[in-house]
Amino acid sequence: MGLVVQKYGGSSVADAEGIKRVAKRVVDAKKAGHQVVVVVSAMGDTTDELIDLAGQVSPIPAGREFDMLLTAGERISMALLAMAIKNLGHEAQSFTGSQAGVITDSVHNKARIIDVTPGRIRTSIDEGNIAIVAGFQGVSQEGKNITTLGRGGSDTTAVALAAALDAEVCEIYTDVDGVFTADPRVVKKAKKIEWISFEDMLELAASGSKVLLHRCVEYARRYNIPIHVRSSFSGLRGTWVSNEPQGDQQVEQAIISGVAHDVSEAKVTVVGVPDKPGEAAAIFRAIADAEINIDMVVQNVSAASTGLTDISFTLPKTEGRKATDALEKARTAIGYDSLRYDDQIGKISLVGAGMKTNPGVTAGFFEALSDAGVNIELISTSEIRISVVTRADDVNEAVRAVHTAFGLDTDSDEAVVYGGTGR
Amino acid sequence: MGLVVQKYGGSSVADAEGIKRVAKRVVDAKKAGHQVVVVVSAMGDTTDELIDLAGQVSPIPAGREFDMLLTAGERISMALLAMAIKNLGHEAQSFTGSQAGVITDSVHNKARIIDVTPGRIRTSIDEGNIAIVAGFQGVSQEGKNITTLGRGGSDTTAVALAAALDAEVCEIYTDVDGVFTADPRVVKKAKKIEWISFEDMLELAASGSKVLLHRCVEYARRYNIPIHVRSSFSGLRGTWVSNEPQGDQQVEQAIISGVAHDVSEAKVTVVGVPDKPGEAAAIFRAIADAEINIDMVVQNVSAASTGLTDISFTLPKTEGRKATDALEKARTAIGYDSLRYDDQIGKISLVGAGMKTNPGVTAGFFEALSDAGVNIELISTSEIRISVVTRADDVNEAVRAVHTAFGLDTDSDEAVVYGGTGR
Repeated sequence: MGLVVQKYGGSSVADAEGIKRVAKRVVDAKKAGHQVVVVVSAMGDTTDELIDLAGQVSPIPAGREFDMLLTAGERISMALLAMAIKNLGHEAQSFTGSQAGVITDSVHNKARIIDVTPGRIRTSIDEGNIAIVAGFQGVSQEGKNITTLGRGGSDTTAVALAAALDAEVCEIYTDVDGVFTADPRVVKKAKKIEWISFEDMLELAASGSKVLLHRCVEYARRYNIPIHVRSSFSGLRGTWVSNEPQGDQQVEQAIISGVAHDVSEAKVTVVGVPDKPGEAAAIFRAIADAEINIDMVVQNVSAASTGLTDISFTLPKTEGRKATDALEKARTAIGYDSLRYDDQIGKISLVGAGMKTNPGVTAGFFEALSDAGVNIELISTSEIRISVVTRADDVNEAVRAVHTAFGLDTDSDEAVVYGGTGR
Repeated sequence: MGLVVQKYGGSSVADAEGIKRVAKRVVDAKKAGHQVVVVVSAMGDTTDELIDLAGQVSPIPAGREFDMLLTAGERISMALLAMAIKNLGHEAQSFTGSQAGVITDSVHNKARIIDVTPGRIRTSIDEGNIAIVAGFQGVSQEGKNITTLGRGGSDTTAVALAAALDAEVCEIYTDVDGVFTADPRVVKKAKKIEWISFEDMLELAASGSKVLLHRCVEYARRYNIPIHVRSSFSGLRGTWVSNEPQGDQQVEQAIISGVAHDVSEAKVTVVGVPDKPGEAAAIFRAIADAEINIDMVVQNVSAASTGLTDISFTLPKTEGRKATDALEKARTAIGYDSLRYDDQIGKISLVGAGMKTNPGVTAGFFEALSDAGVNIELISTSEIRISVVTRADDVNEAVRAVHTAFGLDTDSDEAVVYGGTGR
């Protein structure tokens, strides 16, 4: 029996009852003979309440102090969880991100982990304790200031600790039963995936699936740490994410892993761009200088009569204003005609390593959309993914049509609970 | 202009408005040309709420985890105060007890400061920042675990930092205007004391005055750090506590500094103790082994006919059960007749260095009590204090009578707000 890292999100430890339920689950793993390290998020709404307090004293809270404030949340949940475990007769010790050796860069509010030195955790578990670690937080290598890892940070803490401690598995406990072939809120017949490769999971995460964040899966792939996503409520076996299926996991890779969708993006079209070298570069330099991440990019064929072309790209709606401001400022330098901004779009993506060797997938995808009467506005592909942009209103219908067309529908009637994973 | 350490209690930072008011006061000190270090307690009821949460998951929360939990409180208030100060256009950085170099022993929930290494604080203020430090917390020298300092801990943090940074003064902001000649809730005509010596302040604190705790004053005396106790609401000049009056402080030491009272103690009488060497030692060894601190001790003259005597002592009511249990257990070994427990007592103390050279003070004290019809049950004296135990019901009347008899009543009608100082 090896070492297991378990991570529990905010909804799993929302109140005293939740903390006691998690304590039991942790103790069960310990009783089964594992060494156990637990990563925990802040309780339920704690983070939102702290953000609200910050807003009351300062309109733009400073990064360093904001991190100091937010990290109080995990300090509370981890201490309470350690107490609850000790109350069940097992030894537990809680550790802040800093005490656990989570070393980050100095970018407050969205720091990146650059090293993990888990000496204190190793000592604690070797002495027979269950170690409880605050998720989402670390300490900067320079300046020794408290940092936070941004959205989904606790999952990343868990995977990083699992890698540093050479854990057997990193279990991510959440409020859903695992990763599904589509969002069960949209597709009633979505199936829980038994096993999925890191590559397919990365594409799903990049395409709008919310269960695991891209950054956490990327970390797990780099250090080859199997992730087991499962429910802290049901206790059922969930979804395994790893390089290769193991043991009794379903051994045959599905052609298609799942259908993801995303309605959080907007489309910017730069109209009437002179079709000559360097124009596209000037546009995306302006966007990059504003520190905006873009997703899909499409350039139309230039009309021979005018020598002008249009360039479209998608980006998070939250960045829309910043992007159009940046382009307006660079208008004369770039020399385009006008800007169009459209936030009524949706993206549907089909993901699966099987499409590399199954040439019919692309055609089947477009046929399914066409049969459902869905118009395609942009197309983008990778080796194991096809994505299209449609009207936002068409997205749910499109996802259901594609899910059925590729034989992903389940026959079972089991109820599925679906929600966010906390931070 | 030198360095000033300011400490704000929980009632001063109870909500966003309070934090903004404190931020202004801090910035005023900075604008006046001081280097400023601020020690802050947890907001209002935060600590009680955390204790309540702990009770929900575990009946007897473990010391280490309890400290980890409680220290979340100051983390929240200090980060918010730093944000509020930055919002006023001044630079501020917050530091945990550990970051501020508050090194303690390993006794969780009531650790003692054994060293302060304020390198980061010094650097921060030398760079022009206002440094905000979490009160009440530190880090253990062995094990590097988070500790808390127990009741009144934030005051001690402030004085310890002031000593380590060689501050000009340690300002303790609270919700009263200073130290009074008696508790203004009991004596309407109590006067604010302009200046009081460390020695008299120590006796007042030991005798029931709640404004400053004994431990904090003891620390200030050892390192000769002047304390200025004042209101965070009124901004008025408060009470200076120091070795010698300075500058425009009232230079003549009053004969009597004040009248303190305490109704939190109980009296235990061990009846029928054989009057021979070693009996008292056996009683107080049993008490000490149970880790109970006692206050006054009185032994009656033994009755010649029986060779038996009675021994009485006072102690905090909260320790009453533990003490009688310990004595019951040692009954055969000690060989006494019976135990009496009385929690309806009160203590009145008259404090003032002037009584050393004014022989009439003791007589005046007893006369005032006698004139008020108050019966005395026990008497205990030090060089600069006389204390008596009476019925609890008589305490308020006794305090007023003594206050008037020693000419401490003020003629002014100013309203006084009085309350606790938080932790």
